[in-house]
Amino acid sequence: MRFTIFEVAAALNAEVFGDGSVTITGASEPALAGADDLALAMDPKYAEGLTTGSARAAILWDGADWQSFGLEAAIVVPRPRFAMSGLTSLLDPGPEIAPGVHASAVIDPSAQIGEGAAIGPFVVIGSGVRIGKDARIASHVSIASESMIGEQALLHAGVRIGARVVIGARFICQPGAVIGADGFSFVTPEKSRVEEARASLGAETSAVNASWTRIHSIGSVHIGDDVEIGANSTIDRGTIRATSIGHRTKLDNLVHLGHNVSVGEDTLLCGQVGIAGSTKIGNRVVLGGQVGVSDNIFVGDDVVAGGATKIMSKVPAGRVMLGYPAMKMEQYLEAGRNWRRLPRMMEDIKALKKAVLSDDKYD
Amino acid sequence: MRFTIFEVAAALNAEVFGDGSVTITGASEPALAGADDLALAMDPKYAEGLTTGSARAAILWDGADWQSFGLEAAIVVPRPRFAMSGLTSLLDPGPEIAPGVHASAVIDPSAQIGEGAAIGPFVVIGSGVRIGKDARIASHVSIASESMIGEQALLHAGVRIGARVVIGARFICQPGAVIGADGFSFVTPEKSRVEEARASLGAETSAVNASWTRIHSIGSVHIGDDVEIGANSTIDRGTIRATSIGHRTKLDNLVHLGHNVSVGEDTLLCGQVGIAGSTKIGNRVVLGGQVGVSDNIFVGDDVVAGGATKIMSKVPAGRVMLGYPAMKMEQYLEAGRNWRRLPRMMEDIKALKKAVLSDDKYD
Amino acid sequence: MRFTIFEVAAALNAEVFGDGSVTITGASEPALAGADDLALAMDPKYAEGLTTGSARAAILWDGADWQSFGLEAAIVVPRPRFAMSGLTSLLDPGPEIAPGVHASAVIDPSAQIGEGAAIGPFVVIGSGVRIGKDARIASHVSIASESMIGEQALLHAGVRIGARVVIGARFICQPGAVIGADGFSFVTPEKSRVEEARASLGAETSAVNASWTRIHSIGSVHIGDDVEIGANSTIDRGTIRATSIGHRTKLDNLVHLGHNVSVGEDTLLCGQVGIAGSTKIGNRVVLGGQVGVSDNIFVGDDVVAGGATKIMSKVPAGRVMLGYPAMKMEQYLEAGRNWRRLPRMMEDIKALKKAVLSDDKYD
Repeated sequence: MRFTIFEVAAALNAEVFGDGSVTITGASEPALAGADDLALAMDPKYAEGLTTGSARAAILWDGADWQSFGLEAAIVVPRPRFAMSGLTSLLDPGPEIAPGVHASAVIDPSAQIGEGAAIGPFVVIGSGVRIGKDARIASHVSIASESMIGEQALLHAGVRIGARVVIGARFICQPGAVIGADGFSFVTPEKSRVEEARASLGAETSAVNASWTRIHSIGSVHIGDDVEIGANSTIDRGTIRATSIGHRTKLDNLVHLGHNVSVGEDTLLCGQVGIAGSTKIGNRVVLGGQVGVSDNIFVGDDVVAGGATKIMSKVPAGRVMLGYPAMKMEQYLEAGRNWRRLPRMMEDIKALKKAVLSDDKYD
Repeated sequence: MRFTIFEVAAALNAEVFGDGSVTITGASEPALAGADDLALAMDPKYAEGLTTGSARAAILWDGADWQSFGLEAAIVVPRPRFAMSGLTSLLDPGPEIAPGVHASAVIDPSAQIGEGAAIGPFVVIGSGVRIGKDARIASHVSIASESMIGEQALLHAGVRIGARVVIGARFICQPGAVIGADGFSFVTPEKSRVEEARASLGAETSAVNASWTRIHSIGSVHIGDDVEIGANSTIDRGTIRATSIGHRTKLDNLVHLGHNVSVGEDTLLCGQVGIAGSTKIGNRVVLGGQVGVSDNIFVGDDVVAGGATKIMSKVPAGRVMLGYPAMKMEQYLEAGRNWRRLPRMMEDIKALKKAVLSDDKYD
Repeated sequence: MRFTIFEVAAALNAEVFGDGSVTITGASEPALAGADDLALAMDPKYAEGLTTGSARAAILWDGADWQSFGLEAAIVVPRPRFAMSGLTSLLDPGPEIAPGVHASAVIDPSAQIGEGAAIGPFVVIGSGVRIGKDARIASHVSIASESMIGEQALLHAGVRIGARVVIGARFICQPGAVIGADGFSFVTPEKSRVEEARASLGAETSAVNASWTRIHSIGSVHIGDDVEIGANSTIDRGTIRATSIGHRTKLDNLVHLGHNVSVGEDTLLCGQVGIAGSTKIGNRVVLGGQVGVSDNIFVGDDVVAGGATKIMSKVPAGRVMLGYPAMKMEQYLEAGRNWRRLPRMMEDIKALKKAVLSDDKYD
């Protein structure tokens, strides 16, 4: 793929300086750029790299004097991070999945494959499955009976889709993700030790955790449009109703959603987040890496939780949270400050005891 | 599948009210139920849903007046959560794995496949493997040499079983789980910085972490009867002896068991739990989501640990734990209360200093 | 495989006592050892096991009187843990991957397969891929276009290698790992709520998390020589430059490396570690299980972090860290002690208030 600077600028809706007919085949940090690379210098700190690298064209920070770097062409963008979206989309060659259905794929005769869909080697598609138009399904994917995959979906290698899962348009699923595994749901004939511990907040009990009997997951998973799921993430099916993920929500790698979980729209769940069963996550929520959320609670719209926050009770809309257990971020920072004040407090108490009680012991 | 209310009630060992010959094909929350759905209304909060939905039959809470909801038939159960087990088991169609061995499967001639076993497309079975009677093995599974899989086991798509693994009857393995990967075990010729840090509790040292040499895992994995392993979980083989999981123990998704770990019977490990090498977990233990357990320690029988508890030293039998580091739950709750008392304590100290020491500075 | 004690001792560079021509076929804990097992008794605590087991030969602790245990042969090693490396390497039969290319593998004609490489059933290799000499690739692996795999690499079943990934010699990859998935990188046209929260440390804001636009990952992953990656771990490709892992670094199971992350040489990342995007980890670092590291920070050479440490800001070289948020280990231990002193401090304040202020209220 070779693009003119005019084409790149059009994709970014940005202005061209110099010779827009210069062509590039890739992008690079300025110092490492070759003659066919577009140098990415959206910050003045890259000025030096521009002079040591070999790029003929660059994307520059707002206000840069493009001619001073010996460039033949330049593009200037106001919000560089956003420009990265258009640029990388243009330059991404995408995965190599040959058009049509690979001869080795095992497809049930009752499955419907949409026009223009590409299906790779060793794919297995079950009975009654419907694959949308122009969907691309890489090697080793399995899609179980009665599932539906929307138009233009992209399933990378080794993805597992369970039975009766419904997924919208333009879905992107990274390798190894499992959508529609059985939920983790076991019950004892009598109240278990866990149920007692939760009810009593930890008091001793003679109840026993044994005779676990399986609750099967006969619900499904429903996923909206424009959703992305990360590598090796796992989404369990619901018990009766469906586990659900709203439109435009994105999950990173190794994320776990338990059975019956509902995640809203425009939400981001970062790497290794875990959401326990039946919990509801709102719209426009962002949970940082390794965040955990307990079962059967509610996290409101627009909540932001920093890395490794452990959310153990419901969080009202709009809160910014951190810590284990989760606190409002300002509370967490105050708690940290108080923590560091403890040695000083102990000194003060010692001094007071000496003065008042003539007690100079302290250990 | 279509069941009469008599059949459903028999599966639940429950009493029928009304016309037990009414049939259902699925289950639903009351408000969403169609005419062929059994409404699940085991709590009075669902009363309204019963009147808005279209179910002709329902499972009701103990004491409900079934006739007041316009139902034709009803089942009443004393412990609704337990009833879910029998009901979902009845209604679960299970995975679609055709009987017999799929033509594409690659099976070593020395492998023994039990009577009635079903083996899906693109399965690979190594030399000397023994598959029990009526086992079901979905697409893309690999089972390495000399492993044994028990009767009626169900291995979902893409499961990886390493060499010499021994697994009992009625095993259920969700997609993508890896059983019998090599342990993470490296050693340096001289004592490493890590060994020094652990011995000295963090004091500075000049030891170096380098020249890591691999300790191979020549042990195996032994798994009892009636065990379930979640999607994309990983169980490493032992170094010399076997990593082991006792009868009736269940692991959720993305759980990690290190080499030489021993997990007892009737134990539940929830999503993203990690157990480091050579640690022993007792019987009837329940570890909540994201719990971590350090290497080479012992967690006693009947221990319950809440979500994200980090267990760094041994835990006696019967304890209910929470926090990082793990504390008894009541201690953890007390610690949280003390934490919130700190600002008040600082105020008191300030007042005391002013009164006693005529010191009114405090920051 | 059958080895003489002479052969075992040569592999361990250790001295033989007794009859070195005795042969063994495996290794075992002393009490469980059969006549063909080498008993591993590197600690005096195993003395009793030696007498109850049936081993004819053993590896003993330094100073043991081998003749007193009725053994025919013995090996004595000075650093037992290190000896395990040589011993297990000798006894590991390794995975069963038949020589040559399995007939079912789908290999693009433009791919170059090195001499002596073994490729298993249902492997897919894309265009322009280069596989090194004597590499072994187990069943169900996929390697996307233009990737390079070094000599003597061992890829276990179901590994996913994305496009343009470059991997060095003697690479070991456990089952199900995904190398080269897309990074988790989304941007909003205007500043998002998350960006505001990070800038203001949690203050309220009216910014909104929506209109997430994808930044594609057009970078790659570069992995040095002698690296090992654990089961179901995920390594994302870089946005523009490559995500990178240095020589001799080892990752355990379920580890997540975000886009643009750089990990140095000789570093160990234990189970379920997560490193967020663009963070740089130094050489000879050891991160315990479930450690998390925030994005865009630097963890210096020789840092050691205990289990579940959450590193949220940069860590200078050589530190030993623990806790959430991460502290120097000695600070963490001191913090724990102070914590336990709080009830006593409250008592003291109460007594002082009574004495000084005649105030005996305290709650």
